[in-house]
Amino acid sequence: MKILIIHGPNLNLLGTRETGIYGSKSIDEINNSLNGLAKELGVEIAIKQSNHEGEIVDMIQKSKNYRAIVINPAAYTHTSIAIRDAITAVNIPAVEVHLSNIHQREEFRQKSLIAPVAAGQVSGFGPESYMLGLRAAVSIANAKKEAV
Amino acid sequence: MKILIIHGPNLNLLGTRETGIYGSKSIDEINNSLNGLAKELGVEIAIKQSNHEGEIVDMIQKSKNYRAIVINPAAYTHTSIAIRDAITAVNIPAVEVHLSNIHQREEFRQKSLIAPVAAGQVSGFGPESYMLGLRAAVSIANAKKEAV
Amino acid sequence: MKILIIHGPNLNLLGTRETGIYGSKSIDEINNSLNGLAKELGVEIAIKQSNHEGEIVDMIQKSKNYRAIVINPAAYTHTSIAIRDAITAVNIPAVEVHLSNIHQREEFRQKSLIAPVAAGQVSGFGPESYMLGLRAAVSIANAKKEAV
Amino acid sequence: MKILIIHGPNLNLLGTRETGIYGSKSIDEINNSLNGLAKELGVEIAIKQSNHEGEIVDMIQKSKNYRAIVINPAAYTHTSIAIRDAITAVNIPAVEVHLSNIHQREEFRQKSLIAPVAAGQVSGFGPESYMLGLRAAVSIANAKKEAV
Amino acid sequence: MKILIIHGPNLNLLGTRETGIYGSKSIDEINNSLNGLAKELGVEIAIKQSNHEGEIVDMIQKSKNYRAIVINPAAYTHTSIAIRDAITAVNIPAVEVHLSNIHQREEFRQKSLIAPVAAGQVSGFGPESYMLGLRAAVSIANAKKEAV
Amino acid sequence: MKILIIHGPNLNLLGTRETGIYGSKSIDEINNSLNGLAKELGVEIAIKQSNHEGEIVDMIQKSKNYRAIVINPAAYTHTSIAIRDAITAVNIPAVEVHLSNIHQREEFRQKSLIAPVAAGQVSGFGPESYMLGLRAAVSIANAKKEAV
Amino acid sequence: MKILIIHGPNLNLLGTRETGIYGSKSIDEINNSLNGLAKELGVEIAIKQSNHEGEIVDMIQKSKNYRAIVINPAAYTHTSIAIRDAITAVNIPAVEVHLSNIHQREEFRQKSLIAPVAAGQVSGFGPESYMLGLRAAVSIANAKKEAV
Amino acid sequence: MKILIIHGPNLNLLGTRETGIYGSKSIDEINNSLNGLAKELGVEIAIKQSNHEGEIVDMIQKSKNYRAIVINPAAYTHTSIAIRDAITAVNIPAVEVHLSNIHQREEFRQKSLIAPVAAGQVSGFGPESYMLGLRAAVSIANAKKEAV
Amino acid sequence: MKILIIHGPNLNLLGTRETGIYGSKSIDEINNSLNGLAKELGVEIAIKQSNHEGEIVDMIQKSKNYRAIVINPAAYTHTSIAIRDAITAVNIPAVEVHLSNIHQREEFRQKSLIAPVAAGQVSGFGPESYMLGLRAAVSIANAKKEAV
Amino acid sequence: MKILIIHGPNLNLLGTRETGIYGSKSIDEINNSLNGLAKELGVEIAIKQSNHEGEIVDMIQKSKNYRAIVINPAAYTHTSIAIRDAITAVNIPAVEVHLSNIHQREEFRQKSLIAPVAAGQVSGFGPESYMLGLRAAVSIANAKKEAV
Amino acid sequence: MKILIIHGPNLNLLGTRETGIYGSKSIDEINNSLNGLAKELGVEIAIKQSNHEGEIVDMIQKSKNYRAIVINPAAYTHTSIAIRDAITAVNIPAVEVHLSNIHQREEFRQKSLIAPVAAGQVSGFGPESYMLGLRAAVSIANAKKEAV
Amino acid sequence: MKILIIHGPNLNLLGTRETGIYGSKSIDEINNSLNGLAKELGVEIAIKQSNHEGEIVDMIQKSKNYRAIVINPAAYTHTSIAIRDAITAVNIPAVEVHLSNIHQREEFRQKSLIAPVAAGQVSGFGPESYMLGLRAAVSIANAKKEAV
Repeated sequence: MKILIIHGPNLNLLGTRETGIYGSKSIDEINNSLNGLAKELGVEIAIKQSNHEGEIVDMIQKSKNYRAIVINPAAYTHTSIAIRDAITAVNIPAVEVHLSNIHQREEFRQKSLIAPVAAGQVSGFGPESYMLGLRAAVSIANAKKEAV
Repeated sequence: MKILIIHGPNLNLLGTRETGIYGSKSIDEINNSLNGLAKELGVEIAIKQSNHEGEIVDMIQKSKNYRAIVINPAAYTHTSIAIRDAITAVNIPAVEVHLSNIHQREEFRQKSLIAPVAAGQVSGFGPESYMLGLRAAVSIANAKKEAV
Repeated sequence: MKILIIHGPNLNLLGTRETGIYGSKSIDEINNSLNGLAKELGVEIAIKQSNHEGEIVDMIQKSKNYRAIVINPAAYTHTSIAIRDAITAVNIPAVEVHLSNIHQREEFRQKSLIAPVAAGQVSGFGPESYMLGLRAAVSIANAKKEAV
Repeated sequence: MKILIIHGPNLNLLGTRETGIYGSKSIDEINNSLNGLAKELGVEIAIKQSNHEGEIVDMIQKSKNYRAIVINPAAYTHTSIAIRDAITAVNIPAVEVHLSNIHQREEFRQKSLIAPVAAGQVSGFGPESYMLGLRAAVSIANAKKEAV
Repeated sequence: MKILIIHGPNLNLLGTRETGIYGSKSIDEINNSLNGLAKELGVEIAIKQSNHEGEIVDMIQKSKNYRAIVINPAAYTHTSIAIRDAITAVNIPAVEVHLSNIHQREEFRQKSLIAPVAAGQVSGFGPESYMLGLRAAVSIANAKKEAV
Repeated sequence: MKILIIHGPNLNLLGTRETGIYGSKSIDEINNSLNGLAKELGVEIAIKQSNHEGEIVDMIQKSKNYRAIVINPAAYTHTSIAIRDAITAVNIPAVEVHLSNIHQREEFRQKSLIAPVAAGQVSGFGPESYMLGLRAAVSIANAKKEAV
Repeated sequence: MKILIIHGPNLNLLGTRETGIYGSKSIDEINNSLNGLAKELGVEIAIKQSNHEGEIVDMIQKSKNYRAIVINPAAYTHTSIAIRDAITAVNIPAVEVHLSNIHQREEFRQKSLIAPVAAGQVSGFGPESYMLGLRAAVSIANAKKEAV
Repeated sequence: MKILIIHGPNLNLLGTRETGIYGSKSIDEINNSLNGLAKELGVEIAIKQSNHEGEIVDMIQKSKNYRAIVINPAAYTHTSIAIRDAITAVNIPAVEVHLSNIHQREEFRQKSLIAPVAAGQVSGFGPESYMLGLRAAVSIANAKKEAV
Repeated sequence: MKILIIHGPNLNLLGTRETGIYGSKSIDEINNSLNGLAKELGVEIAIKQSNHEGEIVDMIQKSKNYRAIVINPAAYTHTSIAIRDAITAVNIPAVEVHLSNIHQREEFRQKSLIAPVAAGQVSGFGPESYMLGLRAAVSIANAKKEAV
Repeated sequence: MKILIIHGPNLNLLGTRETGIYGSKSIDEINNSLNGLAKELGVEIAIKQSNHEGEIVDMIQKSKNYRAIVINPAAYTHTSIAIRDAITAVNIPAVEVHLSNIHQREEFRQKSLIAPVAAGQVSGFGPESYMLGLRAAVSIANAKKEAV
Repeated sequence: MKILIIHGPNLNLLGTRETGIYGSKSIDEINNSLNGLAKELGVEIAIKQSNHEGEIVDMIQKSKNYRAIVINPAAYTHTSIAIRDAITAVNIPAVEVHLSNIHQREEFRQKSLIAPVAAGQVSGFGPESYMLGLRAAVSIANAKKEAV
Repeated sequence: MKILIIHGPNLNLLGTRETGIYGSKSIDEINNSLNGLAKELGVEIAIKQSNHEGEIVDMIQKSKNYRAIVINPAAYTHTSIAIRDAITAVNIPAVEVHLSNIHQREEFRQKSLIAPVAAGQVSGFGPESYMLGLRAAVSIANAKKEAV
């Protein structure tokens, strides 16, 4: 079972950027934790990052070999209908994750365009959000396999 | 470490109520799973349910001996400032969980009055939402202990 | 055939409360008329009143033996998602009635949270609204029986 | 006692039009039921239909010999201030009826311009809405006579 | 110089309709005053009334021989884009008049769709509004003639 | 194959009315072009015009022998739920056309009540909009025939 | 009979200011016309101008000897609750006039705070608006005298 | 003269709850001050607290022997139409008090559903708000007695 | 201890202006009561009135020798950011008072620009509002002195 | 005469993506049809697709040799001011096309940022929308040539 | 070349007022810097301050001998249509400056009524905003001279 | 001291694009002026342009060696949360500049997502906006150095 993990714009700066909100862990540390958990759960993961909306659309379109996507769309959460449409188009379950609790932030960050087409959303637990998101993705993928 | 789990209004009917949205598991089955996971994680849990806003306020006010709260406020998610104030008043981290993905439902269910005062939110994974929520609560409580 | 009739908050004061809006008939007089009409239509009715949102949720949850509910949710019409969810949960047709024409009153009284889950609504005919509501409930219950 | 019954635009197509929403009874079948009930209640009724807003205004203006109006303004419910003004101008009590529960439909069908000047509203009971509307109209007309 | 005067829907009931708002003068008395003033100002007038939006559009389209229009669109003031378009299409100056002060009435009567294409508006002086409107129309027509 | 073409209010004045927006072609010239194209496409067309909302509702109700409707509802685009309901009631595909690009005009002209029940919309190409609309109507009608 | 005429802020610049909107007549020319008309109607007038909101409030408060006020509140039309309250406080009928048609201008100029407490409004006829306003004021004052 | 004082939800925690906003005085200390002031003013008071909306409705319904109510509705200030209706129903003057200045807090705390049916409101003076509220209640009750 | 009392626009007309809303007491009678209460409380007061927004800003700017301000901003309550900024700039506690209950009046009177920078607000008790406001101001000033 | 045709994001997946909404034709099949029609109309076309907003801006900037653009901006229709500005900057007529009827879809898909700067819009006819759009583009380009 | 510089309400308190937002420089220090820069740029400046909206309107009306205006309208930025109209009336380019970045402050400070009639706006650079504003004013005035 | 200057989408077309709004100077001419001013102020500048949102995010992320950024985000001003987040992430002061006065343009151009995280904004002075922006950036960078 392969799971695709996508980090959206500015997440490559994690650990140096607004640490009061996003925490002090770097993206590499998070990726290490994700790889560890993947091993524990017996799944394979691929991790990608981009600051470009169009590149993220491309990544999702090419995800046919994955069983689920874990995506932190960051700023594009609130502005990208193109990413939303890509998720719908490939028809692979996507779990939306956020480091911060988006419901406690600026008005324009409280509405997600991705959430209505995602399988579910995990928001506000810092790097732990990614771990919970990966667990959720595996659980959904397993449920689907069993349903078959 | 003790964790309080609160089921809000109408959740006592789970498994018989709108199963298309909420799934076919009864509240007892969910509680059994929660007890199993608690044992696995080595924590103690107490589980309560009420249809009365005032009783839930009371429960939270009396939660001083707990390290965290996992709460599914159900219908009160969207209308109860009293529950919100109670959470702020006791100053214990609360994890908000929902069975359905509230961001895919009616307009009035997409806005949570609880979220801005909760530690985080898990929404949309069916009974699995409670399991993820319990994990999150334990993780937060541990982080706090370590910080001390 | 048994029909449940529920009076919401403050309706126990009918006849003494704002008679310019709600008329001078007491709740007992209305209940007498309802009992008379029930006899005429050959149905059995039970009548309850409460000022507590939670109690009304309980009443609806315990209405499994009734064929229909006639409910005047009064003030909770505009704020109670819990009552709305209870009606959906029990899956018994509910007829919403109002003494006054809610469309002629304050802005916040013109929107009913109950209406979208009710079978229909009767509003503005004073105590006669209850009589029409009971007739509607019987008609719906009969239609359902025939459909079986 | 004479009662005027007005069917608004497109209601002449009842029984063939969107039967999922409006039911399979034709306008003639409804009119027959209304005539039957009128006889039972001992009142005289006149029934008219028009697709033209101006003609409905004319009908209402010429209704001086009637004791009450039962009107299903259909599409004009939401757009016609002229019909609203006509009802106010003639000063005869009007009962607004709808086949479908307008509170469950598109946003723009949930607001009635007629309701604030109507005596009351009956909505959502299919053809039975007309029967309840006629009963309400007779009840109001009787109350007025007694008041004299 | 010929001026066309148009009375909109329900104005044929003036003097009997909501006299608290619209006054006790009948439409015939207002027309007499208008004829008197027309004579005094040395202009010819034609007076028409209709409850039908389409007929008022027709009247305006056929007004090519008139130098100005004085129109009280009544209820259509707030709903008719068709009358607005007709005024723009014939390119004859229109003076909008209202008996009551529309700015003191219901929210939906405070916005005029006609005003942005009218030369000007007179509102709130009862039957005197028509007299001032006729004076304004003559003044505009004269100004145009001089400009030639 | 017969197609019905309906011109809404004020379109009879085309060529003389606001030529900066609507162009200098008269309604007769447009109708000639439509007849020419109909011949080319091998379909029969009937062309009607009315300034009256009710008459347009009547036209649509009587269109049972037509395979499709091409309609420019003009001012009624933005105000007529009755025309919308008529289109839904007769269940014949309707193509909505506009001479001007309604998305570049006043706020209230940018929202169409007809579009959600139309098959599609062509807007902004002047008289060419009608030609494209007729082609679209024929294409839809053919597709339906094939589907049978 | 004495009538008070008040010019609001920036009207002292008339004839030099945005002549495309306000016309080329100076405030002195308008005042001359007003004096001429006053003589013709047999009334006495006083004319004042101020750029200061407080001064206009003072003027109105000291208007007890006048039978009516004709006021062009200019920019304060849309912002001054103080002038509105002053008009209500002195209880003398006020006629609101505007040179331009405020309904054709910027959004914020289309709402008048004065209109709901004015007797009526004349808008859009250039300097002629003042003449019509003076006639309206005299007509109202006469009607009041007769009523006594 | 008897005055009823009602503390709404969560106020039983005063002194321990968010002391930065609500101050460090406990509810007992406030009640002592109220009893002292009552003695000084020569009135009798009864003090009640509840976290339940329905219980507060009941309290108000049973307040017939009191001359005035001083109520701090706390979180219910912003959501309870039932309490609002109860105040209107018993027809006893109610003075609304708040410890914090609700106009400086979150958007949803700035609108009071109770204020429009209260005699007046005192907000922002900490425990002193209750003292001012009691004085206001006595003053209103005296005025009423004198008016008799 | 010196307290500054400021009456806003149109309050100099109290007792003659809309007595149904503002009561029949003149401003002199209120001032007399204030002076009496000041003597009783052992404080010195200065009382000022102005219809000019700028003058009130000046008064506040020159209030450095006062320990607190009691202000009824009247109409400027809803429009003056300048008065709001002046209160913030001088950093002296201000108590906002209103004769009428502003929450029961026109929409635009229900929002105070002053409240978010005031210490607290007293609204709806007629002249008694000023007395309660003065008491509140003295209480705040005393609390501040003690804190030093 | 050369025409540029641009497919926006996710359209490369046509035929496999949400076929209930977008139909079963692949982008290659549509392009073949477009090439066939281009030949029939005697024009040359170039066809491009991109998932990147910036690339589409670049394409439009480099379109100087084309006489018109036919663009389906897909998801960027609703979010891209940059594409809008590019269309305005190059000053070449653009025809906006949509496969689905955007007026029948989610709220956020009903508003086009491109429409106000496009020559016109064709929406809802499936692949036929492109054919009608190409015809419209040719017609506009011919009209421009004739005007020279 | 003469430039007029206008400081709006409360700016005379600069350096003592909310220094966290507005900085610690007094108005005299800013004026000295402005005089120094004026000398450097070879222009003459006049500096005025007022707390009165009407006086600022007067200042602008009397600015005919100046080539440009630099204005910090402070609180009136958001409320004064009278100052806006005065700027339009005198037809002299005005540069709007703000010490703080108004786009980072309260909602009501983010909308400027002056900006749409100003030549441009400089916001957020503290006292430096005035210096940049003076440079901009000189640049605009020079451009105008050259254009002649 | 090094300053980064970023031109957003479509600015590479300056001088040819909508010259009525953006002026006739090309981007090269503006860059020349910027280089001249940089020399005069003794600072080093780098100038970049892109039509791609992701590329601009990349540019900002790589700006660590610069002391300040001057950015004209053009169309992305109103839609890009990603650019906003990048500015916050790198923690270098950014000065936002616009050629046109965005407050005089379409509604959607009047709100900047960048302004709340920018140091300040200069808008409306044509190419001069860049010069003022560069001066502001140097002034901020100097102030920071002094603070160290």
